[in-house]
Amino acid sequence: MTANALPAEFLSRLSERLGPRLTTSRAVCEQHGGGGMHLPPLPPQAVAFAETVDEIVHVVRACAAFGVPIIPYGAGTSLECHVGAVRGGVSLDLSGMNRILHVNVDDQDCTVEAGVTRSALNEHLRHCGLFFPVDPGADATLGGMASTRASGTTTLRYGGMRENVLGLTVVTAAGEVLRPARRARKSAAGYDLTRLFVGAEGTLGVIADVTLRLHGAPEATAAAVCAFPSAAAATASVTEAVQLALPLARAEYLDETAIKAVNGAFSTGYPASDTLFLEFHGAPDDVTRHAEAFGAIAREHGGGAFQWALEPEQRAQLWRARHHAGFAALALRPGARPWSTDVCVPISRLAECIVLTKADLASAPFPNTILGHVGDGNFHVILLLDPDNAEECAAAERFNEALVARAIEMDGTCTGEHGIGLGKREALRAELGGAVALMENIKRALDPRGIMNPGKIFLEQRSSVSG
Amino acid sequence: MTANALPAEFLSRLSERLGPRLTTSRAVCEQHGGGGMHLPPLPPQAVAFAETVDEIVHVVRACAAFGVPIIPYGAGTSLECHVGAVRGGVSLDLSGMNRILHVNVDDQDCTVEAGVTRSALNEHLRHCGLFFPVDPGADATLGGMASTRASGTTTLRYGGMRENVLGLTVVTAAGEVLRPARRARKSAAGYDLTRLFVGAEGTLGVIADVTLRLHGAPEATAAAVCAFPSAAAATASVTEAVQLALPLARAEYLDETAIKAVNGAFSTGYPASDTLFLEFHGAPDDVTRHAEAFGAIAREHGGGAFQWALEPEQRAQLWRARHHAGFAALALRPGARPWSTDVCVPISRLAECIVLTKADLASAPFPNTILGHVGDGNFHVILLLDPDNAEECAAAERFNEALVARAIEMDGTCTGEHGIGLGKREALRAELGGAVALMENIKRALDPRGIMNPGKIFLEQRSSVSG
Repeated sequence: MTANALPAEFLSRLSERLGPRLTTSRAVCEQHGGGGMHLPPLPPQAVAFAETVDEIVHVVRACAAFGVPIIPYGAGTSLECHVGAVRGGVSLDLSGMNRILHVNVDDQDCTVEAGVTRSALNEHLRHCGLFFPVDPGADATLGGMASTRASGTTTLRYGGMRENVLGLTVVTAAGEVLRPARRARKSAAGYDLTRLFVGAEGTLGVIADVTLRLHGAPEATAAAVCAFPSAAAATASVTEAVQLALPLARAEYLDETAIKAVNGAFSTGYPASDTLFLEFHGAPDDVTRHAEAFGAIAREHGGGAFQWALEPEQRAQLWRARHHAGFAALALRPGARPWSTDVCVPISRLAECIVLTKADLASAPFPNTILGHVGDGNFHVILLLDPDNAEECAAAERFNEALVARAIEMDGTCTGEHGIGLGKREALRAELGGAVALMENIKRALDPRGIMNPGKIFLEQRSSVSG
Repeated sequence: MTANALPAEFLSRLSERLGPRLTTSRAVCEQHGGGGMHLPPLPPQAVAFAETVDEIVHVVRACAAFGVPIIPYGAGTSLECHVGAVRGGVSLDLSGMNRILHVNVDDQDCTVEAGVTRSALNEHLRHCGLFFPVDPGADATLGGMASTRASGTTTLRYGGMRENVLGLTVVTAAGEVLRPARRARKSAAGYDLTRLFVGAEGTLGVIADVTLRLHGAPEATAAAVCAFPSAAAATASVTEAVQLALPLARAEYLDETAIKAVNGAFSTGYPASDTLFLEFHGAPDDVTRHAEAFGAIAREHGGGAFQWALEPEQRAQLWRARHHAGFAALALRPGARPWSTDVCVPISRLAECIVLTKADLASAPFPNTILGHVGDGNFHVILLLDPDNAEECAAAERFNEALVARAIEMDGTCTGEHGIGLGKREALRAELGGAVALMENIKRALDPRGIMNPGKIFLEQRSSVSG
């Protein structure tokens, strides 16, 4: 759908308030178009840089008055083109809303504006003995992480955004400022709107700030790398540890290809094999005990000796290697476009799911590698595609469709943490059927004119954008 | 509002399907009217006992066709007249939906029909090394606990229903059967409808079954009772332990009055003082270590020696005493009607909130006692009222209003775990303001004819029950 040009009156209403922070510069619009993986970018027609809640309200009300789509934008690190301007409109860049509003050490929570990144928050918390654990790898904004219900490498121990967002301030599609929960640790006060906005991908309103649960920085931390004879062995070790309630802080699977890529990029010298990257948090005794307990399980599955990373710099290097493994894999095929799948299945089915996926990949016409948050049942296949090779791209589509179908058949989900955006809309219907119609019903109730990040999550929006 | 008589055609449509499981017996209707605390019962006009999802669908569709209100009913243990038939209609009794559908030991989850009680589930799990921890005291049904977003004595360690419901099957107001999440431990697949139905109090649909997270039964468990010189000292000990991330499994406060009542009812012989009932779960070493660490904190606050309950029967007696403390308190004033308040505040404000509440109670014209899930910031004041004394009941209303206002001022909630029902509707507006209008918007979208448990949560429902 080609969007009409934005009305001059609309643009002047925004620029009166924002000055040079409202721009239609082509370069800035292109920066805000998302894409990058398997989906092409869809640049907005203008970008508004908001620095206060009042400015968000001003932009939303102007968009509501003129029926202009509004797409909240944080760091632009989401992977399913969540920030693409499907129907044109304004990208609302919240990176200037980067104030840490309160840290309540005694209550172990904090309230931050939507544009604060997780690394900025953790840097701020460095001296107070607390940290915010959710770590999707990318240095996303916390508002963006809430919007996509992000999780990551530490979710096994600390939960994801679903569990760690205690409250939020949202600007509704009508430009109202609401705060649907207070700061108590638990509440039975009406519908859980907080968790409705977490994962709504900006389609129900703009998250202006979030109140987050913080966790005590662990007294001791130890990370280790452990090689296994097979994907099944590595995965089964983690599944067994989870079933025994062994408190792993992180348990990440990297296949042989990923290890080779990491070794190439970071000179890490890990044995080229199916491998787990592990982390243990706790009192020093606990860390030792849990590592020994896991070591025993790993040995039963043929795991090798732990290669320890005990010092902070070593650990940082280890997790940098893990988080950049996807990028490192790009070296396998220079110029390739990466596409990351994201299924998540019950952990009892994970090893089987990975083994079957590997069998599918054996005949794939593109290089690929598997990375997994295996303690949660979630793994990513990174496909390295030649974007100009239509046959190869079609094979990738077929591969992902089969992967998603298998995950659903195993009672799992098409997306453990990346969200629906543009890329998983059909998969969402396959997964949840009639429940999607109920979601659309809520969408229409909260955004009757369909201005909030239109075109995302749902295949067609029966909205009335009629002025 | 006086409800019109139920149409004969409607009743025959139900009884054709349900036979004697559809009744208009006055005695049965009165059993299903709720009330019991500070609110009078509101009996429905008929009670339908459903035993299958198809029967729920049949009842809901008949109610939708005739515009008859439908009130889901589990064990009837909720405290804010959630099951009262404000506008007449049919109570849908789900206690016959008591099948445990699946237990997935490897995934540590289970799926149970809505009418399974938590004790029945735990009895079923007894031999598989897993348990379901959420314990509100009453032997509620798991569907009811999901509907009211229940929590209780173990929430500090294991979370409440918000954290432990992985999925559910719901019958919508239109009689559709939906399952808005699959069984993966995490998901970013669209709106979090599961958590929208958790705590919706039957106003958005009927929960037919729930998939629950299970937890490994702790290797060792130890419970203890510890007396303190004051409420502030007891509360501060728990707050400090929580801030130090000491993994308490339960930390319950009972004031001196509650202890006397418990001693009277159970011959427990605890020192008459502000007291904590504690429980520690874990490996035997952990239990010892955590208990010692808590003992050190308690001593700093003037706490006495632990009175241990190590054997299962002793622990059962201790927790029976705690869970029945409210009932035991009735002996303080035979014939009194109890009313339990339910505020929850950030834990940094809890000691202050309890101290100020006790000061308010010093001049109260009714006996009272305080019980608290203090690790969560949640406490109950049990007011023992003479229902025929209007002045006293008015004083109780004023006391609760002031308590709720204070909790809100402290950034807390009017209800930590009991829910809104009929009793907290004004308080919800005071607490969340415009967010309540957004909840009403969702209510209208999902239940446009207003048949699902009408009159609850919201003060007025702008629904169109027009045939």
